[in-house]
Amino acid sequence: MGSRSSWIRAWSAWRAEAVFSGRERTHGVSGTSGADFRRGVWAGRPSRRERRRRHAMRDPERGAISVRAAIPPADCALLHAHVEASFRMDAVRTLAPSFAESAGDVVSAVLEEASRFASAVLEPLNRAMDARGVSLAEGRVVTAPGHRDAWRSFVENGWPAIDHKSEHGGQQMPLALCMAVQELFDRNCPAFGMLPVPQRSAARLIDAFGDAETKQRWLPGLASGAAGATICISEVGAGSDVLQMRTRATQAEDGSWRIWGEKCWISFGDHDLTDTLVHCVLARTDAPGAKGPEISLFLVEGGGAQHGAVSVLRIEEKLGLHGSPTCTLGFDNAVGHMLGAPGRGLAQMFVMITQMRLAVGAMGLGMASAASDIAHGYAQERRQGGAPGNPVPIAAHRDVQRQLLELRARAELLRGLTLNTANIAEIATRSDDGAERAVVGALLQWLLPIVKTFGAEAAFDNASGAIQVLGGAGYTADWPVEQILRDARVLAVFEGTSGIQALDLVHRRVLRDRSGLDAFLAVARRDGEGTALMPALELLDDAAQRIAQADLNDANGSATPFLALAILTAAGWVAARFLALDPDLPAHAAMRAAAGYWLDRLGPRATLAHAEVLAGAAPLVHFS
Amino acid sequence: MGSRSSWIRAWSAWRAEAVFSGRERTHGVSGTSGADFRRGVWAGRPSRRERRRRHAMRDPERGAISVRAAIPPADCALLHAHVEASFRMDAVRTLAPSFAESAGDVVSAVLEEASRFASAVLEPLNRAMDARGVSLAEGRVVTAPGHRDAWRSFVENGWPAIDHKSEHGGQQMPLALCMAVQELFDRNCPAFGMLPVPQRSAARLIDAFGDAETKQRWLPGLASGAAGATICISEVGAGSDVLQMRTRATQAEDGSWRIWGEKCWISFGDHDLTDTLVHCVLARTDAPGAKGPEISLFLVEGGGAQHGAVSVLRIEEKLGLHGSPTCTLGFDNAVGHMLGAPGRGLAQMFVMITQMRLAVGAMGLGMASAASDIAHGYAQERRQGGAPGNPVPIAAHRDVQRQLLELRARAELLRGLTLNTANIAEIATRSDDGAERAVVGALLQWLLPIVKTFGAEAAFDNASGAIQVLGGAGYTADWPVEQILRDARVLAVFEGTSGIQALDLVHRRVLRDRSGLDAFLAVARRDGEGTALMPALELLDDAAQRIAQADLNDANGSATPFLALAILTAAGWVAARFLALDPDLPAHAAMRAAAGYWLDRLGPRATLAHAEVLAGAAPLVHFS
Repeated sequence: MGSRSSWIRAWSAWRAEAVFSGRERTHGVSGTSGADFRRGVWAGRPSRRERRRRHAMRDPERGAISVRAAIPPADCALLHAHVEASFRMDAVRTLAPSFAESAGDVVSAVLEEASRFASAVLEPLNRAMDARGVSLAEGRVVTAPGHRDAWRSFVENGWPAIDHKSEHGGQQMPLALCMAVQELFDRNCPAFGMLPVPQRSAARLIDAFGDAETKQRWLPGLASGAAGATICISEVGAGSDVLQMRTRATQAEDGSWRIWGEKCWISFGDHDLTDTLVHCVLARTDAPGAKGPEISLFLVEGGGAQHGAVSVLRIEEKLGLHGSPTCTLGFDNAVGHMLGAPGRGLAQMFVMITQMRLAVGAMGLGMASAASDIAHGYAQERRQGGAPGNPVPIAAHRDVQRQLLELRARAELLRGLTLNTANIAEIATRSDDGAERAVVGALLQWLLPIVKTFGAEAAFDNASGAIQVLGGAGYTADWPVEQILRDARVLAVFEGTSGIQALDLVHRRVLRDRSGLDAFLAVARRDGEGTALMPALELLDDAAQRIAQADLNDANGSATPFLALAILTAAGWVAARFLALDPDLPAHAAMRAAAGYWLDRLGPRATLAHAEVLAGAAPLVHFS
Repeated sequence: MGSRSSWIRAWSAWRAEAVFSGRERTHGVSGTSGADFRRGVWAGRPSRRERRRRHAMRDPERGAISVRAAIPPADCALLHAHVEASFRMDAVRTLAPSFAESAGDVVSAVLEEASRFASAVLEPLNRAMDARGVSLAEGRVVTAPGHRDAWRSFVENGWPAIDHKSEHGGQQMPLALCMAVQELFDRNCPAFGMLPVPQRSAARLIDAFGDAETKQRWLPGLASGAAGATICISEVGAGSDVLQMRTRATQAEDGSWRIWGEKCWISFGDHDLTDTLVHCVLARTDAPGAKGPEISLFLVEGGGAQHGAVSVLRIEEKLGLHGSPTCTLGFDNAVGHMLGAPGRGLAQMFVMITQMRLAVGAMGLGMASAASDIAHGYAQERRQGGAPGNPVPIAAHRDVQRQLLELRARAELLRGLTLNTANIAEIATRSDDGAERAVVGALLQWLLPIVKTFGAEAAFDNASGAIQVLGGAGYTADWPVEQILRDARVLAVFEGTSGIQALDLVHRRVLRDRSGLDAFLAVARRDGEGTALMPALELLDDAAQRIAQADLNDANGSATPFLALAILTAAGWVAARFLALDPDLPAHAAMRAAAGYWLDRLGPRATLAHAEVLAGAAPLVHFS
């Protein structure tokens, strides 16, 4: 694949021709026509005849039904409107030449092509990955049927490259557009998306701390998708508490490093999708008997390259994300290459935290918006209530409308917050103005635990809410919402639990340095003037001041409701921005509806969270 | 099995002997010793060695791990204390001779025996039912491996009988004790409990509306467990909206009734557990072209007795409760016997609604308390944080304590509310005093949608909360909480969705007749004097008055937050009662802790729900 712009131009030309000639095909997916995938999409409640047929297709071994309603394609015009409405998008486009190109038709083309790929390739894969999962054969992970073909198509279409730097063969699109694309992929198959995220994280680490040889060795492969990557931090006794880690690196006489230990919860810790695989491993390098742990970062080649020295000890059997192998890896005298400085491993990891937390937001967004769209579609079709013999669509009922608005509000505001935060991350990294980098960087640190947690909660709550709208049907495998619920539940656990995010916010962004909060308050007060956001911001400010004055006990006891208040107001900020959008643009209707609903309900909800912050640890007196 | 009391006495004598002689065995379960099941129970996080062994046991076909941590046994002393603390338990014991016997050691014996059965028999079955599910062979449902043996043991031990009337061979224990026993069973295997509930419902219907012959035909079998039963209401186009039903009954020339149509969502619509099976089927008996539907109730023998005329068309593939076959049944010229009066089918169904909704509360309670106990146990053992090299149990962290208290509060208050409501149901049915029956009956109608919905929400929220406490471990099949999450999700859907419960409360218990609310306010104000419950009750009263004055649009838009406020205050009432309990009794500690935590947090939460009621349909203006 050539440069991004030539690819986009070629594709745009092809697309225009296809439209004019009245024919379409699906780009890069042999044997599947555009009409094919649209027929499969949004099947609606299957007819009785169809359901009987499905029943007949029940696999006697597994009791599984092999077809179900598909996740409908996303509204790309809406996503495009979100990209354009995102925080200082025009300023972001000035930050890199490739960013400037990501405008207008290019954005549409990228989004539509991603949506097409998601519906044509990822949608059918999603059910297969869920139903079949992964297996272990002769010490290697075997991915679900169809995964290799889909990955090959993903690579051939250049999708891994969009996030990566141009000098390593990447297309370097602005993060907001990359997040919108990730949303589209994760909407149809979140388990598939569990490999590209660590690829990007590893590339960031290697780019920041690798020498020229290391960069050349890994970065082109990570950008093209030929190399897989993992981030190996957790151990059985060291999850949230990284300092308890036991994995150790020792230096051999020839100066090379050898790694010993076990790491767990490693996504795609092994697989059959890429030619090579690199593990980014934290290990202790302190001398035995040293006072505190010294933790350094190492690159360790895996994927069969160090057979016996790097091995898969276990694959977790999980509630969801079955197609993503979560591995325990054993390192037994494995050769490692130190990345960056000795003892700086943990600090270095922070260069990828921005993007990991944003990625959870985008993943949650894909699931939350899929669930919302399914529920809206169902509620327009399913008829119950009304006069006997003349039932009305359930969307006509007030209580159902409340449920649907709740789903839509979470999806649209999470999307806005994710894209805003992506732009803030770009400005914080790339702005020429050091003072701006500092302020926007602080704002970024404020928003990251919020995006991560809001993404996790919106995905799970929307999946559960969509099940509720669908009723009994939602509880069955005829509809994809039960899988979304299972897949989504991990988002509040991995990459730092919601409790850890809350403590991060309280300790680092309130007690240690509240410049991020102040930056947020400044921008939100400017955007929210005259709306219901303003009193909620006062509550947030007051809650932070109370926490700063409280003893540590109360501050820790307040962390979770404080994070809840931070989420409410961050989404409220996005809502206030949406209210200012041009009401005449059709794509803005959903954004403005979500915004209005959120702001109408913000006051009492923020009041509750504020009251719970002020209660501090007092209710915990009942714990024994 | 003889009468309940002789069984209990024999068992108590056996138990005393076993304790004195230092040996124990599990009652009625051949080949399993008491020590065996306790070894299996509460294994804690498996050791690394154990996890590797499990990994080795991975079934290559299914990728499943065949062992996992067990659900720990319940605290029977705590349950006993709940039974004694329940609303007017002493008065309930005067309502029937068999109730008077259910006191003191008898209660302990019943609870301990039920707990023993649950741990020994249902706990191992739970995983098998989840992993293996049910299948369809030659038109009949085949239950999961081990289910038949467990059911036989359940029957031999007389457990189906405890709910049923003595004249039909039942033990007729008071409903509160029956609910406590159901909680114990559903704690370890909720899918197993999906058969006894319709057995009890069918018995109530037949007892209320059957002639002598019909009663003799079915009631002894339902009490002994030799006969299964189903309740057939829903159809594909008639779920929440029963009036849309199409199943039809026609009278043959000989006066017999024939049933034609399809019913869906039938739990244990067919199975291999009982000798016979009776379906309670709603069907239309209106003449073609009649103005409105006339719906009557029929008994239809199933389970192979009418081969071809009654058939299983489909088994749902569900998120959870895999071991409970959810069937679509076809009736094709099936012989039916009308139960009760023509056209009274729907009205007659209401005699079982009390007990169905209470049963959902108890089922939710079993899951909510299991999840809470697992999380508490894990948090005491799992160490993270604290000084390096000296990690502390995560239960030492304030944010974890908050999570654990939230779980415990829901479980204890739901238990109190379920048992209170059970007593209220007994008084409403059996009191000699007509005026008392009316007031308490109204109170019962107020509480039923609340118990049902609180049970559903507590089970799901506690399962999700327990996953959060366990972190990554909770997301895996090494721990049972992910199954609880999947099983629990249906509770807010079946037996009337939460939205339907909310509309029931608003339309029937506020707009049509608020005597139940007034009865609740009277008793809650008496019990809650001087506590944080009092202002919350004012909010409830005010919200109801506002709804009564609002237009229908706003009333319908307020239904869900109004139900939330009703749940908060109903649980608050239970909490206020707990605070008055003797603090010196150890079993009261958990109840009082839950109560204190709930009441400390009640004010702001009730304020939010009240505000959302007052907003009415206003935020729904954004729906389009």
